[in-house]
Amino acid sequence: MLTVGESMDTRTPNTTHLTDEQRIDWLRLIRSDNVGPRTFRSLINHFGSAKTGLDRLPDLARRGGAARPSRICSEDDARAEIAASKRHGVSLVAPGEAGYPPRLAVLDDAPPLLGVRGAFEALMRPMIAIVGSRNASGAGLKFAGQLARDLGDAGFVIASGLARGIDQAAHRASLAGGTVAMLAGGHDKVYPPEHEELLAAIIESGGAAISEMPLGHVPRARDFPRRNRLISGAALGVVVVEAALRSGSLITARIAAEQGREVFAVPGSPLDPRAAGTNDLIKQGATLTTEASDVINAVEPIMGRPIELREPDDDPLASEPDTSDRARIVDLLGPTPILLDDLIRMAKTSPAIVRTVLLELELAGRLERHGGGLVSLI
Amino acid sequence: MLTVGESMDTRTPNTTHLTDEQRIDWLRLIRSDNVGPRTFRSLINHFGSAKTGLDRLPDLARRGGAARPSRICSEDDARAEIAASKRHGVSLVAPGEAGYPPRLAVLDDAPPLLGVRGAFEALMRPMIAIVGSRNASGAGLKFAGQLARDLGDAGFVIASGLARGIDQAAHRASLAGGTVAMLAGGHDKVYPPEHEELLAAIIESGGAAISEMPLGHVPRARDFPRRNRLISGAALGVVVVEAALRSGSLITARIAAEQGREVFAVPGSPLDPRAAGTNDLIKQGATLTTEASDVINAVEPIMGRPIELREPDDDPLASEPDTSDRARIVDLLGPTPILLDDLIRMAKTSPAIVRTVLLELELAGRLERHGGGLVSLI
Repeated sequence: MLTVGESMDTRTPNTTHLTDEQRIDWLRLIRSDNVGPRTFRSLINHFGSAKTGLDRLPDLARRGGAARPSRICSEDDARAEIAASKRHGVSLVAPGEAGYPPRLAVLDDAPPLLGVRGAFEALMRPMIAIVGSRNASGAGLKFAGQLARDLGDAGFVIASGLARGIDQAAHRASLAGGTVAMLAGGHDKVYPPEHEELLAAIIESGGAAISEMPLGHVPRARDFPRRNRLISGAALGVVVVEAALRSGSLITARIAAEQGREVFAVPGSPLDPRAAGTNDLIKQGATLTTEASDVINAVEPIMGRPIELREPDDDPLASEPDTSDRARIVDLLGPTPILLDDLIRMAKTSPAIVRTVLLELELAGRLERHGGGLVSLI
Repeated sequence: MLTVGESMDTRTPNTTHLTDEQRIDWLRLIRSDNVGPRTFRSLINHFGSAKTGLDRLPDLARRGGAARPSRICSEDDARAEIAASKRHGVSLVAPGEAGYPPRLAVLDDAPPLLGVRGAFEALMRPMIAIVGSRNASGAGLKFAGQLARDLGDAGFVIASGLARGIDQAAHRASLAGGTVAMLAGGHDKVYPPEHEELLAAIIESGGAAISEMPLGHVPRARDFPRRNRLISGAALGVVVVEAALRSGSLITARIAAEQGREVFAVPGSPLDPRAAGTNDLIKQGATLTTEASDVINAVEPIMGRPIELREPDDDPLASEPDTSDRARIVDLLGPTPILLDDLIRMAKTSPAIVRTVLLELELAGRLERHGGGLVSLI
């Protein structure tokens, strides 16, 4: 089925503009139970508007076997969130609208509405992410600052996660050139709290901050990997400055690679555990980076190209599963994650039918989607 | 023309054995003026023996325009060198004989006779070269030692250049596992002199030392790059531990790549000038190395393969240039090095004719061969 009306498939920035009513519907849909960015995209592409999606949610969830009706965000709650955001200087923008980073907009799991504070302009410019250890070495902090300044001089905005260590060094060194903080919690719940002053400096200097979480949301551990997809997704590439093995920065690097972003890593002595992760990234194919030109040379050819949009998945709701389809697919699922591709092979029905059943299960709160195309029953 | 009689194309070790008389002829030929390893190979492949090559030297040099007869090493001098070498515990071995590293034997510019001191067995085992800065950091020295020990435990002999810094650390750490010092001067002119004790320890512990220079030869600056081809050529691969930009270790790495050897480099901080060369090598495609398994995994597949022999060049002396060929080719040459391939294109005659003229010029002391197929008139 063709995409009609409201759409998230917007590869050209500044071409979308939601009406006030549409924005309220979008916010209600994404703030409703069991609706993530991917489900949101499926619903809006199928039904043509968030409003119709909201109307159909209870029925879809019931077909997925929901024990009781899921909570749907009320119009009052949505209006209240928009008003509170406005008081806090936060705009809720949709993919394709001004202020929504163009590269982020084309991800499968792009946030339908992004809370943006600060200069929209900073979010529309070519961006490089710099991330790394919280307990970085003096040399690592110095290098991160130098790289951020040099990339800023070359016209890039620096994205990072406002964390201690490498993140803050990258933000501070790029205040003049422009920098964007990607937050794991709501805009009013800055983590770590001692970086509130840094965040204020970022905004005052013409930078910006983004979050997909509502105001008041205190970031939990699981919000950081989710936030990391915004850091890499908005950028042309991610530079990892120092990272131990099994550190959060390596998760960002893995997500960046999955998103098709360039991954850069700064080498270090084999005897320095803070370089173990970055050396490992280089072994796996990341670009060894010792100066800004290593980054610039690699991303320049990409900047010239139009932003690539992945082929959207088949519209799952275009196919109508029957009761035996549902039963068969639920039987194949269990608490152990399995690959969607394997499920489709085993289900002996069309991929579209399988996807429809999964969407119903998801809306019923019975399905969990893991990274890498893995799904399991909850 | 087919290779007959004595030959340097010996890919299987322990299959050649020169008679005493042949060894004297070989030594006379390689110790005569204007005869380098490549010229030696051409002469012996064409004439079938060093003896005939010696007989024909004056005539070839005259045709190349030698101003006066070149010095030919006398039989007495050759006998004296062999006797003195023997007193010093040094055997002069030919490619294919026991004690001649098998991989070294197949190089275009393999020394026709190699002075070997110590255990032949160490020279026949799989070898990894470890090289690096003379003024290495404490961390670099520690890493070199650790790597040498781990590779020794895995069954590799460690080759290096007996220099200060990384070289000596690699030798010392591999005394137990077996190590080979490649010398730039004669066996009795150890450089640096303070490493005579280290060399003695290498020999006593079951290792070896090799040199292509006669006893008494004091190493000059230009002998070190020449020696470096032995370090890389005998090994499966070369690990560069620390190296500044434009350092000797990078020359070894370049030669290693030209010889088709694996190049490994140990990363370091971009702020450490001693890592600038190694980081650069990795950017150019060297394997980033933080532990012995990085080396072992890369060379294991090569070890299984038979040693590859390059197709020998056409026998230059199979073609007879006339006077106009000689004049035309000399006119194309000058003091600025040009590519042999370009010369052949411009000379409007067969490659074999060009090579013959170049050989004659070389024997007349009028031609200089540079690396990378470049030649110039002296």
